[in-house]
Amino acid sequence: MQELRHFFETYRKQHPITGQPVGLYEPAEYIMNLGGKRFRPMLTFLGYQLFKDDLEKVLPIAYALEIFHNFSLVHDDIMDDADIRRGAATVHTKWDVNTGILSGDLMLVKSYEYLAEFEEEDKIPQLLRVFSRVAREVCEGQQMDVDFESREDVQIEEYIRMIALKTSVLLATCLEMGAIAAGADEASVKHCYEVGCNIGIAFQLQDDILDTFGEGQKVGKRIGGDIIQNKKTFLILKALELGSAAQKAELEQLMNSPTTDADAKVKAVKSILNELDILQHAQEKKDHYRALAFEHLEALAAPAAKKAPLKAIMENLVKRDS
Amino acid sequence: MQELRHFFETYRKQHPITGQPVGLYEPAEYIMNLGGKRFRPMLTFLGYQLFKDDLEKVLPIAYALEIFHNFSLVHDDIMDDADIRRGAATVHTKWDVNTGILSGDLMLVKSYEYLAEFEEEDKIPQLLRVFSRVAREVCEGQQMDVDFESREDVQIEEYIRMIALKTSVLLATCLEMGAIAAGADEASVKHCYEVGCNIGIAFQLQDDILDTFGEGQKVGKRIGGDIIQNKKTFLILKALELGSAAQKAELEQLMNSPTTDADAKVKAVKSILNELDILQHAQEKKDHYRALAFEHLEALAAPAAKKAPLKAIMENLVKRDS
Repeated sequence: MQELRHFFETYRKQHPITGQPVGLYEPAEYIMNLGGKRFRPMLTFLGYQLFKDDLEKVLPIAYALEIFHNFSLVHDDIMDDADIRRGAATVHTKWDVNTGILSGDLMLVKSYEYLAEFEEEDKIPQLLRVFSRVAREVCEGQQMDVDFESREDVQIEEYIRMIALKTSVLLATCLEMGAIAAGADEASVKHCYEVGCNIGIAFQLQDDILDTFGEGQKVGKRIGGDIIQNKKTFLILKALELGSAAQKAELEQLMNSPTTDADAKVKAVKSILNELDILQHAQEKKDHYRALAFEHLEALAAPAAKKAPLKAIMENLVKRDS
Repeated sequence: MQELRHFFETYRKQHPITGQPVGLYEPAEYIMNLGGKRFRPMLTFLGYQLFKDDLEKVLPIAYALEIFHNFSLVHDDIMDDADIRRGAATVHTKWDVNTGILSGDLMLVKSYEYLAEFEEEDKIPQLLRVFSRVAREVCEGQQMDVDFESREDVQIEEYIRMIALKTSVLLATCLEMGAIAAGADEASVKHCYEVGCNIGIAFQLQDDILDTFGEGQKVGKRIGGDIIQNKKTFLILKALELGSAAQKAELEQLMNSPTTDADAKVKAVKSILNELDILQHAQEKKDHYRALAFEHLEALAAPAAKKAPLKAIMENLVKRDS
């Protein structure tokens, strides 16, 4: 993986997002240079190498997907009023909102420009359709997330759909586009998509679990952040579904009042979650999607040796006991 | 033309921008329904019908270009803090800035989705490249426009480049994509592009002229609006280039002080412009680009009868004496 990441970074540095006027391009290159795990390019490579070895051919697509991801971060950070991204100032904080909007737009266009650079022209129409579908879905997921903030009646199925649209479908599409680029058969392309989508949902559920039930040091962030921010995570929604009238009322009251004592609030919410065995419910849900992901990995038509790197990533991403 | 517009509107109404969540799609369909001249689809049709007659095939491309244009309006209106568009509230005024950003993003993606619907798949890669190029250039033009507001040293050539990027290249690309879709030869495609680009610049220069020297009733808006807003139009930039030190100083002083008496300001600025024969310079510049546009129309390989509708539009758009 270290090698693949280096392979990607070398290409990226050879193809910086530069041009005139610099006020438009500089913020785009700034966010791209803030780092990140490059997880989307990695998945694109892993989808491709299931079926073909000449990874340099899929580089423009991997880059397109990483640029797209960073575009969505720039615009989401404006909408979420976030100051910090990857430990540095967000684009609209370092420059201003207008710059964030316009440089973000440029990045979305640049992602399509790199997509159009894929050598096998006959595959471009399908890649274009798949890429545009996921770009649209990511917008839909962001809007659902915004809508949920002011809604009191969010259902678990809607929540799963929202996290799928907001993050999993892009991971799924990275694997899918890698497979399409490599000329995989239709069924395998579909399996690749399902691997990414299900592992993404499992990862997101694990994220919800760790934020509330993780060990601070391991997780690397303050435990209970979601609770303090009144986020309607899977845990909260499940508790609202299963709780007695009294438990629901207490939970809603906790979430609707301003946080004065954060530790006390986290403790009170966790106590309700524990009464209802929410951790176990969440882990079962996570394991359900995790298992689906591995079933689709099993089903796709590639040699076990080729599947090994992807399998290792998946296992690392969603550990059964965390 | 009336017929072509109806043809386009019928298709558009059959393909509204709808989906879930409605909070994302409604603003997009709202701006599309505010009307507008549909000038970009018209040019796409005109570029196509120079070479082929089955106009229904180019409809998705015409629609993609109109959606793209409206996307750019939604985001530009946020950046320009504009409240009114086509006589109605702008998207970010009717909803909010975040909605404007996200629905705008959706529209950019939808424009690519319609592009991908063109039937002749082998032409899609080229169409994708041309479309992405113009989308990028429109972002560049908007950034130049923003930069110019705070710059005191804008050169005429830069101004022409800015208006070209901000509006002309999109008109040019409409004709170009129509021609590509119709399978025109490479030279004719290039001529189509040049027709649109040059007529667009001529139109923009005419717009500058009319705003200051037009007759209010004919133009349909208040004369002198650009002067009151201290816009660095061709007229002002040319006066700064040709004026004596005293004239330049007076002009800069007028533009840098708050407008207390609008009529007096317009009169004072126009007096300097008249001293320097700026109207004649502007008309010569406009005629230069106008002539270039007609030369390229002449040069492209299509029968005169096929060129007639485009020629009529061009003549109407940029009248020699206005």
